[in-house]
Amino acid sequence: MTTTLVTGIAELLTNDPEREIVEDAAVVLAGDTIGWVGPAAQAPAADEAIDLGGRAVIPGFVDSHSHLVFAGDRSAEFAARMTGEPYDGGGIATTVAATRAASDDELRALVAHRVEEMHHQGTTTVEIKSGYGLTIDDEVRALKIAREFTTETTYLGAHVVPSDATREAYVDLVAGPMLRACAPHARWIDVFCEPHSPHAFDADETRHIVAAGRAAGLRIRLHGNQIGHGPGVQVAVEVGAASVDHCTYLSDDDIAALAGSDTVATLLPGVEFSTRSPYPSGRRLLDAGVSIALASDCNPGTCYSSSMPLMIALAVREMGLTPLEAVRAATLGSARALRREDIGVIAVGKRADLTVLDAPSYRHLAYRPGVPIARSLDEVSPS
Amino acid sequence: MTTTLVTGIAELLTNDPEREIVEDAAVVLAGDTIGWVGPAAQAPAADEAIDLGGRAVIPGFVDSHSHLVFAGDRSAEFAARMTGEPYDGGGIATTVAATRAASDDELRALVAHRVEEMHHQGTTTVEIKSGYGLTIDDEVRALKIAREFTTETTYLGAHVVPSDATREAYVDLVAGPMLRACAPHARWIDVFCEPHSPHAFDADETRHIVAAGRAAGLRIRLHGNQIGHGPGVQVAVEVGAASVDHCTYLSDDDIAALAGSDTVATLLPGVEFSTRSPYPSGRRLLDAGVSIALASDCNPGTCYSSSMPLMIALAVREMGLTPLEAVRAATLGSARALRREDIGVIAVGKRADLTVLDAPSYRHLAYRPGVPIARSLDEVSPS
Ligand SMILES: [Zn+2]
Ligand SMILES: [Zn+2]
Repeated sequence: MTTTLVTGIAELLTNDPEREIVEDAAVVLAGDTIGWVGPAAQAPAADEAIDLGGRAVIPGFVDSHSHLVFAGDRSAEFAARMTGEPYDGGGIATTVAATRAASDDELRALVAHRVEEMHHQGTTTVEIKSGYGLTIDDEVRALKIAREFTTETTYLGAHVVPSDATREAYVDLVAGPMLRACAPHARWIDVFCEPHSPHAFDADETRHIVAAGRAAGLRIRLHGNQIGHGPGVQVAVEVGAASVDHCTYLSDDDIAALAGSDTVATLLPGVEFSTRSPYPSGRRLLDAGVSIALASDCNPGTCYSSSMPLMIALAVREMGLTPLEAVRAATLGSARALRREDIGVIAVGKRADLTVLDAPSYRHLAYRPGVPIARSLDEVSPS
Repeated sequence: MTTTLVTGIAELLTNDPEREIVEDAAVVLAGDTIGWVGPAAQAPAADEAIDLGGRAVIPGFVDSHSHLVFAGDRSAEFAARMTGEPYDGGGIATTVAATRAASDDELRALVAHRVEEMHHQGTTTVEIKSGYGLTIDDEVRALKIAREFTTETTYLGAHVVPSDATREAYVDLVAGPMLRACAPHARWIDVFCEPHSPHAFDADETRHIVAAGRAAGLRIRLHGNQIGHGPGVQVAVEVGAASVDHCTYLSDDDIAALAGSDTVATLLPGVEFSTRSPYPSGRRLLDAGVSIALASDCNPGTCYSSSMPLMIALAVREMGLTPLEAVRAATLGSARALRREDIGVIAVGKRADLTVLDAPSYRHLAYRPGVPIARSLDEVSPS
């Protein structure tokens, strides 16, 4: 196994509580894992060497919420919404039609391009949901393609009730035959729990679907409280979901429930940004003791951004997080939202997923919005 | 002179009123200028060919307001401000000290890196201001270095009154010996006209400084109405400034004055974003008939972003512009703010400054915030 010594790290943010930030640091990679971390002056020898020339290094971004398997272009709908049309989840049907119409190769190429785009911006782990197929074959196809790019695949047949289906029949399909066909290709099940949307699912439908998913061996994550106050967060805690995502509208009871649970609150500030919605207070969640994550929700309707640095910049400006809290939420927090112990931290034995910043400090992720300063280590040319 | 045929342009946004958007377009570059524009099917032959494979092309971004000549790191100050500290312009002193302490080579390397970063994001023309030297020698040095990278250099000795100077003596210096030393290296003079800041300049000081600048052969642009309502916009119109920049706080009289003038209102939404200030309404300005521009104001205090795509994304979400209006403001509008006829439009005889999007439409600049989809044509590898 080849070992590689990475030096020229002006600032290393590890997320390891024993040494959270190391200045003038070095890391030794041993194949796919981290073999050594510490001050450059104490670094051991290795087979190869990379000198980063004085840049900051952080754990690779973990984007724990994305919808990358889709075709079609909804930029005109986006432009119209910016002039005042509200979002109620109905535009998903446009994407469903375009996705069903795409060939396997077209869909695979679109996903590959988006995953590459993420990697190019420093994201080293991505969760990918189905949910634009909404038939057994189309959902299975989405998950099979997603699995070519990540182990974190999520069955989201319960994204919306298709316009050509009755609600009861569709819930039975999602919790029955569609689930049985999809479960072998997914690690997670997810439901868009949002009684405020006529297209999404209420609390009882959500309970029913996730119970079936659990019985089929899937772990649970939920969309909740995006469009208004609702039962999503409470149901997530009740069913032991690893994460409840959005949390745009939170009551005191929701925050108390999260604080007393293992459920991570995954914040998706790109959605508030692109739908002109109020931002939830990440500060309040942290102060209450809730575990939080940041993710992109990259999708064609409410946030077609794959930029984890932008999510950090938004969380610092609009959600009351410090730059350190925001970067931690986008790495360690989102790793926890995926129940992954092997990523999100730079420490011996963890995966060798490093992201390099064209900047002297992790703070620049918040300080330099829109500027592509983050890049996965394997895309950085050694100097 | 070598001619190059650029094809594979799914959508060409020209800013030429005769053919604003051309689908399936081609452009022929003749050396540094544009030789032909039209539908791909009618394109003439050329010496070389580039196939963009179905991407959108727009005029290169014109960033008509930046402060790139500086040293030092103020990311910790930024982080503190996000927790509630207001911005009053006083932090500039930190940058002045670091900039004065840097060697010529250090400063040149920093500017080169920032200009390259801009170019990498699709900016093909940048205006660069002095203003972190505040002594004769340091201001001259800043302008000489800036001129190595652009013809659009701006003398901004009147950025702030240095803490070790009296106001009257400093105004005399800026309008006298410092101006005489700087004028040969600058095209523009600029003043931070902002009576609300104890560090900046009032209306009469501004009039005095710009009159001296005009007498020395410089053209006029102003910073105005950033921190509160004030005389900046009115003074800019009165003195015939090419542009008044920020316009965060505008009265009805300010808008009327702009509408009846040739002065461009340059909006800098990255500043409102990074200082958590209210955004001015670009919609209201356009509806009143005001010429607007978008620029980054890239600087270490109030907006350390060089991303014109982010400015477009913000203007669409927060200032009421359509994606087309925002892209136009970031290209044609900012060219007008620099009184440049040769850039900002893709038409025969204009400069061959093209920006290529990894997207099918210019709308994606607003639709995909934070994602680095824009790139100058000469950074795109031909397929
Ligand atoms: Zn989602
Ligand atoms: Zn400025």
